[in-house]
Amino acid sequence: MHQKFSHRAQVLKSSAIREILKVTEQPDIISFAGGLPAPDAFPLTEIKTATDTVLQSKDIYGALQYGPTEGYAPLRQWIADYLSARDQTAVKPAQVLIVTGSQQALDLIGKMLIDSDDKVLVETPTYLGALQAFNQYAPEYIAIESDSEGLKPETISDDVAAEAKFLYTIPNFQNPTGRRLTESRRQTLVAKAKHNHLILVEDDPYGDLDYQGHRLPCLYSLAPENTIYLGSFSKILTPGLRLGFIVASEQFIGKLVQLKQAADLHTPSLTQYIAYQVLSKNNFLTHHIPKIREIYAKRCQYMLDSLKRYMPRQVHWNQPEGGMFIWVELPENINATELLSDAISQKVAFVPGETFYAHAEKTNCFRLAFVTVPEEKIERGIKILAEMINHRIHHLQEKTVMM
Amino acid sequence: MHQKFSHRAQVLKSSAIREILKVTEQPDIISFAGGLPAPDAFPLTEIKTATDTVLQSKDIYGALQYGPTEGYAPLRQWIADYLSARDQTAVKPAQVLIVTGSQQALDLIGKMLIDSDDKVLVETPTYLGALQAFNQYAPEYIAIESDSEGLKPETISDDVAAEAKFLYTIPNFQNPTGRRLTESRRQTLVAKAKHNHLILVEDDPYGDLDYQGHRLPCLYSLAPENTIYLGSFSKILTPGLRLGFIVASEQFIGKLVQLKQAADLHTPSLTQYIAYQVLSKNNFLTHHIPKIREIYAKRCQYMLDSLKRYMPRQVHWNQPEGGMFIWVELPENINATELLSDAISQKVAFVPGETFYAHAEKTNCFRLAFVTVPEEKIERGIKILAEMINHRIHHLQEKTVMM
Repeated sequence: MHQKFSHRAQVLKSSAIREILKVTEQPDIISFAGGLPAPDAFPLTEIKTATDTVLQSKDIYGALQYGPTEGYAPLRQWIADYLSARDQTAVKPAQVLIVTGSQQALDLIGKMLIDSDDKVLVETPTYLGALQAFNQYAPEYIAIESDSEGLKPETISDDVAAEAKFLYTIPNFQNPTGRRLTESRRQTLVAKAKHNHLILVEDDPYGDLDYQGHRLPCLYSLAPENTIYLGSFSKILTPGLRLGFIVASEQFIGKLVQLKQAADLHTPSLTQYIAYQVLSKNNFLTHHIPKIREIYAKRCQYMLDSLKRYMPRQVHWNQPEGGMFIWVELPENINATELLSDAISQKVAFVPGETFYAHAEKTNCFRLAFVTVPEEKIERGIKILAEMINHRIHHLQEKTVMM
Repeated sequence: MHQKFSHRAQVLKSSAIREILKVTEQPDIISFAGGLPAPDAFPLTEIKTATDTVLQSKDIYGALQYGPTEGYAPLRQWIADYLSARDQTAVKPAQVLIVTGSQQALDLIGKMLIDSDDKVLVETPTYLGALQAFNQYAPEYIAIESDSEGLKPETISDDVAAEAKFLYTIPNFQNPTGRRLTESRRQTLVAKAKHNHLILVEDDPYGDLDYQGHRLPCLYSLAPENTIYLGSFSKILTPGLRLGFIVASEQFIGKLVQLKQAADLHTPSLTQYIAYQVLSKNNFLTHHIPKIREIYAKRCQYMLDSLKRYMPRQVHWNQPEGGMFIWVELPENINATELLSDAISQKVAFVPGETFYAHAEKTNCFRLAFVTVPEEKIERGIKILAEMINHRIHHLQEKTVMM
């Protein structure tokens, strides 16, 4: 039946991350590969209480029955209120669509905007899951140059901005690099978007995880007409609920609702009711987010200290101000994917950088995730990696000397 | 930003059902329009106990964390065992993919199989949600003639069968007609499929709801190589969990897993854990399904009795052996969509038939859903409809006489 596959299914490749994650399920692996949030930051008590409340109330029938495609009305209202206050931008509930995790938002946005060969602008590197979602609609990617301050908006010409269907960006503590787009670049990007009617797809799962609690304005607040904002409860509540949301103009939301109805009718009612119960009680996020920040900041610092202690001086990495990832750059002649094979044989895992590029580019980078790894394992894992890298550097030097 | 929409988003039409469902949310409407299962058949006690068990056990971390795209392993195993026993066909867990409601299965199958203008065979009429899902991939529909015994497989020529990407069918108590495909037609259809390498997409949300408990063999059990089977927990557990599953060859499942990963990473973990707890305890379905059958059979009979009592002799309907729907056929010159406008003004709702056809066809049919309506309201609603129809028949006769 293979010959019956659609063209899009035929060209679909298996994901490198997927294969890696299988290996990292073994309990004896020190895995810096996963993008999982830390379970010790899950609000277990609040979720139990909320679930009890839902199941004991007359709401139980709503929680177990079919619901509206747009999402559970009180949760949409809560999100609108939360964002309006947090970002000082008026968001109406009619501008909020609940999705089954923000991965679904990426799929629906790809469906809404991309025809074959349409131009889509992405960061360098960018989130693998976004590439997987968009790939199904066969865009032509234009990679926007990026550095430690995020993407460089001044490198986007007006012609490219005007022609592109949209620009996809994670401005806060990006996956995979952990980078944050600076405030002045946000202003430049937004001005360029407004000038050229460029749609900005702003993916913001890590925005609340800034260690110092110092937010930068989201693109949506700077250019609401141009921006489709994606939020997620995976990192501030728990990912197993699969709850995310899209905020955009009512015109976009109207179309996305139709696409979502065809995709899965609606996001599960029960998880929406539970999330609403947790979020709406006792200013939950006001006291929960600082707890996550503290745990993540501490593990990040521990990994940064380990990197500093063990890595050879030829290796570079960034100092994240938030989020879950550190981006490591090796000398150019060391291939991170080859390094991974050796690392796994020594029970350490990470994600090689090349998987995060729209066009094959840097092969000497990798992503480290630190939030689920206990401190002693962070040190041990980094030490093992450092020794392997050191060995390669010396081996390469010897080869150079011998030539 | 309208001009940025993809072609598929531009041609997307708003659903008639969707607009109707909005009206039927008003509490004073007698709605035969919804496709909702009856809340009095929800297993509340079992779901509460199961949820408690999940939240009190160490499984809670799994239930709240990211999980595998394929679904929660014990639930996949349970489904494989259940189907293997029920349908006397060996199903392996590797052949099971958990989806976020079987609507998602339709979307993923469309993605996997349909290129623009590919031929897809559908029943006449067929499930609106399937048309909505497949439409996004722009197939050319070929409508297969159907009658009270379901689709007519002998009307499918070998050429058409060989050329089509797949045939989509709901063999049991079809939505919208309530019809069941007879056993001999199943055999004929399966023989034709095997002979022509035709893929059968067998959507079976109502299969367990046969009032007499007399199952007919599913197409999957007759032709496992040709069939992609879609199951749902919406009607035998509750729809608010949004849990369905696909059973197919490992080759199909492998491709569908990749597509699902791009679509929403995975179905919520929490709802899967809860469903597994309910399903795996005390042979839950063995005693729960008969309860649902009893409630549904009783309401169906009540509606059939009301139809018989009030409807003029020119109106025809089927006698369902299971499921949630009755299909009513009016005299050809009465338009059911026009009838609906009047009916709503008299606080009764149903779904006009024309919305269920791939190509605009019959305008004189409508779908009645009976399972969520109390008996006294069934009688009152049918009486109102019958009077309206009677009035139209007489009005038309007068016009004919006057001409």
